[in-house]
Amino acid sequence: MTHSVAIIGASGYTGAELIRLIATHPGLRIGALCADRKAGQTIASVFPHLRHLDLPTLVKVDEVDWSGIDLAFAALPHGTSQEVVAALPDHVKVIDLSAGFRLRDPAVYEKWYGDAHRALHLQDEAVYGLSEFYRDEIKNARLVAGTGCNAATGMFGMLPLLSAGVIDPDEIILDMVCGVSGAGRAAKEAMLHSEVSEGTHPYGLPVHRHTSEFDQEFSKAAGQKVEVVFTPHLMPANRGILCTGHVRGDADAIHAALVERYADEPFCVVLPMGEAPATRHVRGSNFVHLGVVADRKPGRVRVFSALDNLNKGSSGQALQNANLMLGLPETEGLMMAPMFP
Amino acid sequence: MTHSVAIIGASGYTGAELIRLIATHPGLRIGALCADRKAGQTIASVFPHLRHLDLPTLVKVDEVDWSGIDLAFAALPHGTSQEVVAALPDHVKVIDLSAGFRLRDPAVYEKWYGDAHRALHLQDEAVYGLSEFYRDEIKNARLVAGTGCNAATGMFGMLPLLSAGVIDPDEIILDMVCGVSGAGRAAKEAMLHSEVSEGTHPYGLPVHRHTSEFDQEFSKAAGQKVEVVFTPHLMPANRGILCTGHVRGDADAIHAALVERYADEPFCVVLPMGEAPATRHVRGSNFVHLGVVADRKPGRVRVFSALDNLNKGSSGQALQNANLMLGLPETEGLMMAPMFP
Amino acid sequence: MTHSVAIIGASGYTGAELIRLIATHPGLRIGALCADRKAGQTIASVFPHLRHLDLPTLVKVDEVDWSGIDLAFAALPHGTSQEVVAALPDHVKVIDLSAGFRLRDPAVYEKWYGDAHRALHLQDEAVYGLSEFYRDEIKNARLVAGTGCNAATGMFGMLPLLSAGVIDPDEIILDMVCGVSGAGRAAKEAMLHSEVSEGTHPYGLPVHRHTSEFDQEFSKAAGQKVEVVFTPHLMPANRGILCTGHVRGDADAIHAALVERYADEPFCVVLPMGEAPATRHVRGSNFVHLGVVADRKPGRVRVFSALDNLNKGSSGQALQNANLMLGLPETEGLMMAPMFP
Amino acid sequence: MTHSVAIIGASGYTGAELIRLIATHPGLRIGALCADRKAGQTIASVFPHLRHLDLPTLVKVDEVDWSGIDLAFAALPHGTSQEVVAALPDHVKVIDLSAGFRLRDPAVYEKWYGDAHRALHLQDEAVYGLSEFYRDEIKNARLVAGTGCNAATGMFGMLPLLSAGVIDPDEIILDMVCGVSGAGRAAKEAMLHSEVSEGTHPYGLPVHRHTSEFDQEFSKAAGQKVEVVFTPHLMPANRGILCTGHVRGDADAIHAALVERYADEPFCVVLPMGEAPATRHVRGSNFVHLGVVADRKPGRVRVFSALDNLNKGSSGQALQNANLMLGLPETEGLMMAPMFP
Repeated sequence: MTHSVAIIGASGYTGAELIRLIATHPGLRIGALCADRKAGQTIASVFPHLRHLDLPTLVKVDEVDWSGIDLAFAALPHGTSQEVVAALPDHVKVIDLSAGFRLRDPAVYEKWYGDAHRALHLQDEAVYGLSEFYRDEIKNARLVAGTGCNAATGMFGMLPLLSAGVIDPDEIILDMVCGVSGAGRAAKEAMLHSEVSEGTHPYGLPVHRHTSEFDQEFSKAAGQKVEVVFTPHLMPANRGILCTGHVRGDADAIHAALVERYADEPFCVVLPMGEAPATRHVRGSNFVHLGVVADRKPGRVRVFSALDNLNKGSSGQALQNANLMLGLPETEGLMMAPMFP
Repeated sequence: MTHSVAIIGASGYTGAELIRLIATHPGLRIGALCADRKAGQTIASVFPHLRHLDLPTLVKVDEVDWSGIDLAFAALPHGTSQEVVAALPDHVKVIDLSAGFRLRDPAVYEKWYGDAHRALHLQDEAVYGLSEFYRDEIKNARLVAGTGCNAATGMFGMLPLLSAGVIDPDEIILDMVCGVSGAGRAAKEAMLHSEVSEGTHPYGLPVHRHTSEFDQEFSKAAGQKVEVVFTPHLMPANRGILCTGHVRGDADAIHAALVERYADEPFCVVLPMGEAPATRHVRGSNFVHLGVVADRKPGRVRVFSALDNLNKGSSGQALQNANLMLGLPETEGLMMAPMFP
Repeated sequence: MTHSVAIIGASGYTGAELIRLIATHPGLRIGALCADRKAGQTIASVFPHLRHLDLPTLVKVDEVDWSGIDLAFAALPHGTSQEVVAALPDHVKVIDLSAGFRLRDPAVYEKWYGDAHRALHLQDEAVYGLSEFYRDEIKNARLVAGTGCNAATGMFGMLPLLSAGVIDPDEIILDMVCGVSGAGRAAKEAMLHSEVSEGTHPYGLPVHRHTSEFDQEFSKAAGQKVEVVFTPHLMPANRGILCTGHVRGDADAIHAALVERYADEPFCVVLPMGEAPATRHVRGSNFVHLGVVADRKPGRVRVFSALDNLNKGSSGQALQNANLMLGLPETEGLMMAPMFP
Repeated sequence: MTHSVAIIGASGYTGAELIRLIATHPGLRIGALCADRKAGQTIASVFPHLRHLDLPTLVKVDEVDWSGIDLAFAALPHGTSQEVVAALPDHVKVIDLSAGFRLRDPAVYEKWYGDAHRALHLQDEAVYGLSEFYRDEIKNARLVAGTGCNAATGMFGMLPLLSAGVIDPDEIILDMVCGVSGAGRAAKEAMLHSEVSEGTHPYGLPVHRHTSEFDQEFSKAAGQKVEVVFTPHLMPANRGILCTGHVRGDADAIHAALVERYADEPFCVVLPMGEAPATRHVRGSNFVHLGVVADRKPGRVRVFSALDNLNKGSSGQALQNANLMLGLPETEGLMMAPMFP
């Protein structure tokens, strides 16, 4: 038996990545594809790389017959998403990839995103979608909030260390180097090839919005208020996020904590002590590579994590969560190897 | 029942692509991985993107126990490959990805490659590996010669037109724009990032070696001697070849010939009349996209074809042939959608 | 004595390239910078790479005091440009970088660009701005029409051959591989880094507008109607155009014709017979590199030309023309070497 | 009067950049170009982008007639360089771009570089080549040691802050994102386009050699032992280094210290408070852009610095030093604007 899913916001990059992954997933089929401005177009015209697939034409979200749909992925901007999700029928499970339901405290949401929450009644039931850390809650959830892609990258490295108490929670600095596709498909001057290629710069200054997710999850894991310094940088590559986490602690204890935490996780690979990951080695996949490298200064340690922002950072994570929510094997459709070169 | 395969030359890019594809192929398992200089290393150290897989350590080719191996992929330089293939046990089917067995006439091989054929006794049984055009011969072959990646790109566009007699065989010009990975993983100054990025130039001048494959296959299809003008250009992207074929004929007849020829082919997609393909829309996949665009000058037509040189141009093609040779469904393990962006 | 120049459309890439070049030109100073939507901003905010320069703030074109301005560069879209140029005072010499004045016959302009010419009274005096071929006319012109960047690339290779009668004018095929910056700085989905990088595709199909310039100039040079087949391809690099011109003739005669034609030209470099240029070797400069490579098929020859679309293809050409129009040494401010890597 | 200079190691990227810059320098001419493996070749064959220049053929260093040479740039690997520099005649001033003479204490050199110093008698007179901080010593030096490119990037941000005492010297973390050309032109698998493009990773782990320069210069500036945590990352771009320096102090005091220190420096641009630089805005130039951005956590500040590794990070710096050593205006030949896009 296959489950039928809908993708709302199918004309964006996370939408395309969902279709790509679901295309070879044995337990899912795509029942509806929604896009607002591009409603009426075929996937072949919006994403020619998917033209070999037999897929429904893009429609507006209010044109969908939800009766046969089991689960919806909402891949929309955060403001829009809250209202759209709120309007979905109760029988449809929802994975929202926007920032709309990530922050448990609506006041925190309003502070960081600058607008009022438009689906307050749903916030309480929303489960934070970091699969490896909320697996049981996700299995039973009706609404899962996908994480920020930068947030996920930092959390894979830091959460086990905060939980294990092997680093100083007051001394965490996260520098990231991030691919371009995280900015989405909207036409912006700053994201033109001529603007982005051949260079790098920090962005999201002075404080990037994903910091709010770190505050929430790190404080919970540490059992105390944790505030990190987080600075993302744009690199001229489409996919991939590398987090360089500067922490204080014992390198061996840190490495051991990661090894132990991820021993049974199919997608989280801890490299041997002293080795560091590269984003190109997880590209196009749902894997996370983690590395620990001590500095010559005693007690100073670099914890590196790398993932694909469109896959493990958003759409792969969403599919992993869908598997959990629908009672399918968690790794179904997600074991394809990274693509290199 | 799964078949056991070996990959000889597993530390190069076509070797890595074979492993990537076979990783999720339900009917194959990797029994041996060979590399000469890197023998003794693990795949995790040679290709960290494959480190999640449970794979044998790299060995020298003469260390392999061939008794359990059904089929070998040889992904070696052309001179080396002939001797290695000749030394394999008879029960092992072979797909050779080098130029070693592509040219039926050994004199032609010597003329274009400049060295004597080192496995003459095998040449007669070698089948040219363009799956869609030699399907029946491949099914029964013990030795299949994978095509050149540029050669494959040009042939998908031209062979049906020559067979159908809808273009002038004396007036074919093929310009290609090719990704960097086709040059392989050998350390060469000319392939450094600093040399290749941010520009383009023609290469393989005055006549690229793959021209010999065009001579052979185009002449056979047309039933007369055909010689094309072929000029490849290097682009700063890792994967992809775009062929712009300039031909003379009627655009509608040309488009119709392609549509008819590929109607039942799962990997060959003919775009609507007037549309052109992009390499990024077949990246990482075994698909070929073809397009026909008439020029304003009557009788002048552009025929475009695009594929991924590492996939459909070599390792995907090889796997498709392996499926045929082993009696497996032809598309097994090859239906993953292209990766974009 | 220095001449004062204005740049209209200073917030685009050709505007920025003009500023970059003029910054170290000893005979010019920038008297006014105009931009419509970005009026009121400083160059530091629009183009941070120029922030070290002491430059006027961007203003709207009607805010300029033209009394002290000797020459204006108009770097605007073609429709807009005609009206703006028509409104400039008579004492201001003008170099228009748009397509607005390139085509001598307004009916041809309307056919290719789809709108009526808005400055018909100026068309007759406009000189086509290919410096090496209209040098004397440019010296005496008030209005010079900069060429299309693709058009310039093709003409450097073909014009001397058509004039010398060493190629068949009915058998010219021009394939080009072009950098992204030629599309300008406007925010378009198709020009995002995620869309453009890691691949190539043909564009401007079925017939690119610059073809009209080839028709005009090639027919004039050949003394007969000439129509070429022209197909540009986008590559993932910011700067550079490579033209592969397929012609029929004698390779030695073709090479000799180029060598002779460009013997005294400071910016046109003809490579030794059999060598081909690369765009990265002219990047950031006003140089054109040309190469001739015979094919194995008798009488078939490839003529390659490479230039930087923003420099020799537009802003460098414009500055070279400004030197001519203002009585300055033609190479002033233009001899900086290409930047590689 | 022009000075004659020699470039030893002219076939590498820093050699090419020196030639590019000197090509339009009014006070210098190139008297000799040396390369070992490529001796006998012309610059046109080694660096086609410089083929328009009238330059001597490459020779071996012992073939040079030094009698007419005023100054030599040595752009060689560090071990080689010491011996070559030691063999130069006394009348030739020398700027060594290798690590051979950067570290004042030969024991420190041996510790970090693993081999014995081969020109110990010259070490005492060698001046560290960070122009803005050793200007007077450089003017009178016979031997100047060019800085590491990463080292220079970090020092422009940190040295003024350590001297002014506005940051805690025990709490400095430097993360860098670095272009590929810094790895040089040697053919290495790890620097192939296919390996480097489309991703990022940290390198030089656990401790990069340039850290030794930080130890030396930071400790001197602070008047106490300073050890930083330094982690460089490779990005898929040819030129540019961005340093994100994490420091503790008052953001306004930090910004003021930079503004004051660089007020009269022609190449050092401090951005307005809260703005951050991008490497692409200094590409191809001798400029450094610096920015200060406070974090939300009180007392935590990011200090960003960006430069072009081949220019201000090595060859531009070297030319600036040559100007000082030869009594020429310090900015001569170095005011060309950055190239964007």
